[in-house]
Amino acid sequence: MSGTDLSRLCVHTITTKPLSIEEAAVAYNGEGISGITVWRDALAGRDIRATGRMLRDEGLEIVSLCRGGFFPHAASAGRAEAVEDNLRAIAEAAALGAPLLVLVCGAAAGLPLETSRKQILDGIAAIEPAARAAGVQLAIEPLHPMYADTRSAINTLAQANDMAEALNSPWVGVAVDVYHLWWDPMLEQEIMRCGRNGHLLAFHICDWRVPTRDLLLDRGLMGEGCIPVRQIREWVEAAGFKGFHEVEIFSTEYWAGNQQQFLQKIKQAYLHHS
Amino acid sequence: MSGTDLSRLCVHTITTKPLSIEEAAVAYNGEGISGITVWRDALAGRDIRATGRMLRDEGLEIVSLCRGGFFPHAASAGRAEAVEDNLRAIAEAAALGAPLLVLVCGAAAGLPLETSRKQILDGIAAIEPAARAAGVQLAIEPLHPMYADTRSAINTLAQANDMAEALNSPWVGVAVDVYHLWWDPMLEQEIMRCGRNGHLLAFHICDWRVPTRDLLLDRGLMGEGCIPVRQIREWVEAAGFKGFHEVEIFSTEYWAGNQQQFLQKIKQAYLHHS
Repeated sequence: MSGTDLSRLCVHTITTKPLSIEEAAVAYNGEGISGITVWRDALAGRDIRATGRMLRDEGLEIVSLCRGGFFPHAASAGRAEAVEDNLRAIAEAAALGAPLLVLVCGAAAGLPLETSRKQILDGIAAIEPAARAAGVQLAIEPLHPMYADTRSAINTLAQANDMAEALNSPWVGVAVDVYHLWWDPMLEQEIMRCGRNGHLLAFHICDWRVPTRDLLLDRGLMGEGCIPVRQIREWVEAAGFKGFHEVEIFSTEYWAGNQQQFLQKIKQAYLHHS
Repeated sequence: MSGTDLSRLCVHTITTKPLSIEEAAVAYNGEGISGITVWRDALAGRDIRATGRMLRDEGLEIVSLCRGGFFPHAASAGRAEAVEDNLRAIAEAAALGAPLLVLVCGAAAGLPLETSRKQILDGIAAIEPAARAAGVQLAIEPLHPMYADTRSAINTLAQANDMAEALNSPWVGVAVDVYHLWWDPMLEQEIMRCGRNGHLLAFHICDWRVPTRDLLLDRGLMGEGCIPVRQIREWVEAAGFKGFHEVEIFSTEYWAGNQQQFLQKIKQAYLHHS
């Protein structure tokens, strides 16, 4: 959107990793940013309810908690631990006042992808009652295929949609991240599908740098790369999504710079390239 | 296969990049490797017909020429140049005695993927008559989605199969490379599809290192990573494929070492992990 409307702009705490959550809250508010998604590491050592109040007092809407997931493990003990950790994440989201927990589903390099996928389905089914009881929705976030080795065996929106439909709960949906999904020829069709089903719970934006110099930590600002962010936003909105547009950027380059200036760049990129 | 059968083992010249094609021919022959796929850069400054004879005299079967493609360009002059270059590649394949030209289809970072895909289809249609006349088949190689920015807008086997079927020529099929496709939940189904249609023309192997340290030049030997190479080989053979298993590894690490020892490692990896 070319304009001045920041009412749907959300920033992930990881995007401004050098800032504490207290510093981030003040800085986001100072820049007129409306929403915040909190990464769990930002909560370390803090009273989570008080941190939630602090964020709301700064005028920020808490959009989601990142991240649960990582269900697959070769050993059953590892799978049980993963479920326990996800139950803790749901409790943290509830305490914080976040209505959504984003799931990076996981993959175990020693397991066939099909086995990992079955374990992910089982893991989400195991935590769904707690999510329902806590009033916290769960968003399955498909990750780029370059992360299929260890981060997620769910690599297309079609897979995430299939899984959300199989779980068939109003508490389980999907997250659409342009970085992970922009290349998929089925993207528009699958966005419409999750929109129709009420499963489209979150929308994450950034850009794919050309060239990309690192598999994990070289994401770009919207407009700096080759992702048609605005096109995908139009699809998401045509699918009925009315939530926040969440800027999630992992970048050693941006993390090394001044974070206040980075937030100003994020605003400009949001207004002009998304 | 655990065994000693090297009769289906082919190595790409790029895999042993430090060797000239003449050195590679002697080294491959010395190790009992049966096939060679030639990259065009290896032919620079050489008489191509004579080089083909040299390879056959060393007892090597020439499996394919890599690579044509890179059709999409914003300007029509660029697209015309790409077609011209692909016509030269077809002529080189014929002169060399290679029955197949592998196509890395290309992507233009400034163009929508849909536009690149349309230009790829048009480009292959434009060169198909020359391929037919020369007796050289064309293999559309889908590339990993992490290369959708500049290397290929064809990122799944389903897309390559769709395109081969749309072109509907006995001279156009697909190449299956485990590195690009291993993550795809539709892989087995799409391998069976191209096998059924007579479109499965080539099979490339290597492995995905965990972690992968570079987007392009950190491929591993079979068994060094997380790709179920043997499972995919079984699918390819179940689909009726009887051709070579081509080892295509880009690796700054292996290129820095002794290439004869590397070839011995390739043989062991092939026999035990593919």
